Amino acid sequence: MHDFESHIFASDNSLVLQSGEKLESYVLAYNTYGKLNRKKSNAILICHALTGDQHVANQHPVTHKPGWWEKIVGPGKAIDTQIYFVICINCLGGCQGSTGPASIDPATQRIYGLNFPIVTIADMVHAQCQLVNYLGIEKLLCVIGGSMGGMQVLQWAASYPERLRAAIPIATSSRHTPQNIAFHEVGRQAVIADNHWHAGRYQEYNVSPKKGLAVARMVAHVTYLSEDVLQEKFGRNLQERTDLTYGFDADFQIESYLRHQGVSFVDRFDANSYLYLTRAMDYFDLVKDFNCSLNAIFKQSQVKFCVISFTGDWLFPSSESKKIAHALAFSGVHVSFVEIDSEKGHDAFLLNEPEMFSVIKGFIVACEEKES
Amino acid sequence: MHDFESHIFASDNSLVLQSGEKLESYVLAYNTYGKLNRKKSNAILICHALTGDQHVANQHPVTHKPGWWEKIVGPGKAIDTQIYFVICINCLGGCQGSTGPASIDPATQRIYGLNFPIVTIADMVHAQCQLVNYLGIEKLLCVIGGSMGGMQVLQWAASYPERLRAAIPIATSSRHTPQNIAFHEVGRQAVIADNHWHAGRYQEYNVSPKKGLAVARMVAHVTYLSEDVLQEKFGRNLQERTDLTYGFDADFQIESYLRHQGVSFVDRFDANSYLYLTRAMDYFDLVKDFNCSLNAIFKQSQVKFCVISFTGDWLFPSSESKKIAHALAFSGVHVSFVEIDSEKGHDAFLLNEPEMFSVIKGFIVACEEKES
Repeated sequence: MHDFESHIFASDNSLVLQSGEKLESYVLAYNTYGKLNRKKSNAILICHALTGDQHVANQHPVTHKPGWWEKIVGPGKAIDTQIYFVICINCLGGCQGSTGPASIDPATQRIYGLNFPIVTIADMVHAQCQLVNYLGIEKLLCVIGGSMGGMQVLQWAASYPERLRAAIPIATSSRHTPQNIAFHEVGRQAVIADNHWHAGRYQEYNVSPKKGLAVARMVAHVTYLSEDVLQEKFGRNLQERTDLTYGFDADFQIESYLRHQGVSFVDRFDANSYLYLTRAMDYFDLVKDFNCSLNAIFKQSQVKFCVISFTGDWLFPSSESKKIAHALAFSGVHVSFVEIDSEKGHDAFLLNEPEMFSVIKGFIVACEEKES
Repeated sequence: MHDFESHIFASDNSLVLQSGEKLESYVLAYNTYGKLNRKKSNAILICHALTGDQHVANQHPVTHKPGWWEKIVGPGKAIDTQIYFVICINCLGGCQGSTGPASIDPATQRIYGLNFPIVTIADMVHAQCQLVNYLGIEKLLCVIGGSMGGMQVLQWAASYPERLRAAIPIATSSRHTPQNIAFHEVGRQAVIADNHWHAGRYQEYNVSPKKGLAVARMVAHVTYLSEDVLQEKFGRNLQERTDLTYGFDADFQIESYLRHQGVSFVDRFDANSYLYLTRAMDYFDLVKDFNCSLNAIFKQSQVKFCVISFTGDWLFPSSESKKIAHALAFSGVHVSFVEIDSEKGHDAFLLNEPEMFSVIKGFIVACEEKES
């Protein structure tokens, strides 16, 4: 647990979204750790993944669990909050204080529900940039994140190359693959199938599509783990019983584990937010958005990249990260590519991966020193 | 379309199940193709997969689609019905005429629902063996099947080695992996989450948990396809539109395809059967059941094996088939192992795979000739 501050940024400006729709007003909930130096040159923006939030290095107010990246962020950690000023923003469309589908629509004074406009990764990043402007930070030392957070890192480097020195996209892709879209679609349909969803207006009925959201979380969770880690961690071990029960109880540990993942998730996450954020990931496709090759998007960029992937990640496989690294190298951009040997699956970026920690630490220090 | 006969086998004997429970009576719906020869030496038993049935080479009575293995089974095909007598049995627990959870419980005269006992792969095979006895077939020329069908093939060879000459397990495993159990559990929870499921008593309410079953089918379907085939077949192509709609419609072809798979499945499949058959697969573990190594199970078996797998199958990866082939070879059993280079995923065994066709044809002929 470290000192941190929680803030709400209320934008004075409206935000024109990629869809053409406009958010007349919005707020972003964010946490900061450490102190911004006088030159405002030590700020690191951490972008969270699909089900993450701004509580990167403090106890979560709902779950009371440690921050999702406390292994990396804190005093003396790879991202040392005694040295750096760390910002983590609940993304637009999220459900931990930032404007999203559970917010009140100022036009109607009702909860948005599905009237909330679709937001994209680019929209999230544009909103984040307004907050960075507000903080008076001209140039972020680094933008870093994994999975959906990695998409935001790439978007930052593509949209605002002059606003960051270093970019560390981890376990991510420059466009969501059809397999990933497919798994997200299954999750969304599970939410929508829940009769408590009420076409997205569940709050007005004082219910919540918990069962559907739990199923969505379960299927997502399977994709976050590798076959190897499932084998090693659970195998066909039985859950607190000596033999099969010949029924539909959670006989196997893996079943019990997944049910727990599903049930505990619904207490901290809004079902409509899940729909919107998965949609934002599905829509992510830098090449389509910029209407040019990945090489061309980053051509001559002064941003220094460190692209990190994990061998056991089948959801965002190393091949996707390699494509990004190749395009960057081809475009004459400073890029390091680190493929970490880990059988933990996609979740590896959230877990104890000492090689990742040292790579991140070293890379940020190198980017910093060269500029000082 | 070929000549075929549809039958119902009603057992005179009760069936003691692996759980210890007993089915006092049961029926098996089965189709036959071709003619049993005088020596009764040309019978091939085809075991269907999770959502398959006995309609292996005739138009399906519900969907009106061709039989699920017409590419392989028929006059002049790899399994030539002018030469062989082909039997395909709707498995115990299924929903196309064999006794399952949608059948009437003779004890209560109500639909079984969750009062139907859990059946295992071994139970399915024991029931099939009663039917083979009834047909007066002492020795099947071959037992063949993919996925859950392949599990039945292995079970046949393990439980009744003297009753078959050749065994062709395709895209299968000697025990269901934790990843596979995990995906099945997600599917079951999707069914159970549907408020129309009514604790398995939906028929009494004149409803059906269609939404939940559709979600279960969708997640399963994603696992049947490889990343490569999804990329090649769908990529990020849009469905009948020129740009994103910024909403939750099926913008992407892969979404539209999956929704169709889900919706069309529920018209032909019983939700409780889906629970029972996935459970049977999860419980499958030859080594546990026989309480000895795979090597020991098949030691000195006279059955000739041809184990087939596909490189692009990540659900039942080649490594699982290799384990089986290695154990058989180690046990001094006649075994061929064929790994077919195919990027179609697990579904490859149902698709146009000429190498599989010729391997099956050649192997059966070889087994036949040697004995004649």
